[in-house]
Amino acid sequence: MSDRLKQFTEYRRKMNERLLSEDNRVIKRMFSLDSLTFSQDSTLDRKTKELLGLIASLVLRCDDCVSYHIASSVEAGATKDEIMETMSIGLVVGGTIVIPHLRRATEFLDEVTGADA
Amino acid sequence: MSDRLKQFTEYRRKMNERLLSEDNRVIKRMFSLDSLTFSQDSTLDRKTKELLGLIASLVLRCDDCVSYHIASSVEAGATKDEIMETMSIGLVVGGTIVIPHLRRATEFLDEVTGADA
Amino acid sequence: MSDRLKQFTEYRRKMNERLLSEDNRVIKRMFSLDSLTFSQDSTLDRKTKELLGLIASLVLRCDDCVSYHIASSVEAGATKDEIMETMSIGLVVGGTIVIPHLRRATEFLDEVTGADA
Amino acid sequence: MSDRLKQFTEYRRKMNERLLSEDNRVIKRMFSLDSLTFSQDSTLDRKTKELLGLIASLVLRCDDCVSYHIASSVEAGATKDEIMETMSIGLVVGGTIVIPHLRRATEFLDEVTGADA
Amino acid sequence: MSDRLKQFTEYRRKMNERLLSEDNRVIKRMFSLDSLTFSQDSTLDRKTKELLGLIASLVLRCDDCVSYHIASSVEAGATKDEIMETMSIGLVVGGTIVIPHLRRATEFLDEVTGADA
Amino acid sequence: MSDRLKQFTEYRRKMNERLLSEDNRVIKRMFSLDSLTFSQDSTLDRKTKELLGLIASLVLRCDDCVSYHIASSVEAGATKDEIMETMSIGLVVGGTIVIPHLRRATEFLDEVTGADA
Repeated sequence: MSDRLKQFTEYRRKMNERLLSEDNRVIKRMFSLDSLTFSQDSTLDRKTKELLGLIASLVLRCDDCVSYHIASSVEAGATKDEIMETMSIGLVVGGTIVIPHLRRATEFLDEVTGADA
Repeated sequence: MSDRLKQFTEYRRKMNERLLSEDNRVIKRMFSLDSLTFSQDSTLDRKTKELLGLIASLVLRCDDCVSYHIASSVEAGATKDEIMETMSIGLVVGGTIVIPHLRRATEFLDEVTGADA
Repeated sequence: MSDRLKQFTEYRRKMNERLLSEDNRVIKRMFSLDSLTFSQDSTLDRKTKELLGLIASLVLRCDDCVSYHIASSVEAGATKDEIMETMSIGLVVGGTIVIPHLRRATEFLDEVTGADA
Repeated sequence: MSDRLKQFTEYRRKMNERLLSEDNRVIKRMFSLDSLTFSQDSTLDRKTKELLGLIASLVLRCDDCVSYHIASSVEAGATKDEIMETMSIGLVVGGTIVIPHLRRATEFLDEVTGADA
Repeated sequence: MSDRLKQFTEYRRKMNERLLSEDNRVIKRMFSLDSLTFSQDSTLDRKTKELLGLIASLVLRCDDCVSYHIASSVEAGATKDEIMETMSIGLVVGGTIVIPHLRRATEFLDEVTGADA
Repeated sequence: MSDRLKQFTEYRRKMNERLLSEDNRVIKRMFSLDSLTFSQDSTLDRKTKELLGLIASLVLRCDDCVSYHIASSVEAGATKDEIMETMSIGLVVGGTIVIPHLRRATEFLDEVTGADA
């Protein structure tokens, strides 16, 4: 695992724990709803749902969300080509404003898949 | 076909024709890129790509884009359950601000699938 | 109640019922989380929470969400001046792009409070 | 002037007046800042500023703002080709999600310039 | 004051000064309108207005704006619980796309309130 | 050229090359459409088109896109005053949420024009 990927994962874990330590039911439920949505096959399989989460994150231009769904997509069995095609659709729908996010996403994808080794 | 669906399709057809009658290469290419993206199987099959287009449209909250991708998803073989699950993921990622669009999308889906007959 | 307000409320009620008739746990939970968030006093009182929901809806430029939170704010005891000031803050944060939504919101507020009678 | 254009202008005028009748300094100043920004030549001429307002409105996908800046662009001397090119740039930057707004904008442009007569 | 908070405040101060050194009336007025909006009690008290600014910034996903309104909310007397509840409402309205911003916001809140000391 | 500007340009160049090395027609065409849009005079001259790209990027709040169009605007002959006025219009249309992006944009503009030398 690259240093950047480790850092991303560790910060995410630490702050999620911090957020859930709050006595706030709304935050807790939103986090568990997020897990419910993505963590298992349902009508759509996990891989497809992760790709849906990925494109939604990309057109909304949230780098951390994109990174997260790239990592989870790979884990759920998506190939690099499926991920790139998903992101290319996000580029057409979301426009050239998406390009800087696509650059960072592709760098992250290369780290996750070890393509930059 | 319901009157609303006919009206939607007809206005879309008429104005696309109007736009392409302009001598503007950028608009023409953007339209043909849109076709290239969605019109045939590639790494991902057409159905999956339509669902990706649908969730992107929903979180960006464009009612007409949502309607278009619902109709195309159905045409590409997506079931009502697959479409509803795709939209439910859009609801979680995009938040309750998506709800009014989800209401209109579901009404449209019912029209397209004839569920309101 | 004005005809427009009746129509808005009735469509909202009908389609929410339609959505919840789906066997989709994610949608059901998102709706119940929405209720949990706004329906009772907590650290912040209901009125303040409705004004928070209102400004969030206004800067995200969702007319139906704005209408809903205007109606609920009034019900929770907000005065017309508090609602207008909340919306004026949304105008500064969100910019002049918010103006058309502010026009429709003010028309709706006048209907709800009977100011146009 | 077409009926739709008259209706748009009249509603806008009536509700702006209504908004400014509120004793709210923030709203009043935001409106006068809007006038200051667009109403006269400065470093950039009025026409260029209207085209800037137009593309900003289009990528933010606000139909009424787009209509307003189309009408003002024409008034400030912009040709139909300049307006279409401005909007085509908005289409590339903002993506295909902009297309439904571009359809309505072009219909409005045709009404304003009498091209549909 | 933590180093990060000092750095944030100092950069903000330096660049605002730089912006206001420009001979640009529109920028100057927008800055003074921002002050007018938040700096004193009006129909709503300062604390409530800061919480409104906070949720608007969170759903629009602007980290620096969120940080600024967290610091100002604390200064205006908001408790950590009021701030967390405000942000939890932003999470429900804005969806899980808000989560990465909520993580950074909570880290910043902890710095401002000294909770990480 | 400042170190920051060099770093920005180099990362952009490297990752664009990486993206185009993918066998993905949609991405390739979107990139060439972007070039077609901005690279030469058409109905509007290059400078005006760059200013249009700049304001679109600013109201959509994409720092890298803003930086890119600032650099290209300067190259196409835009003066610092024209760029500042373009951005001030973006501030009014997009609201105070734009301010942090305007601070970074102005710092970048100063680097590009050597004003911080």
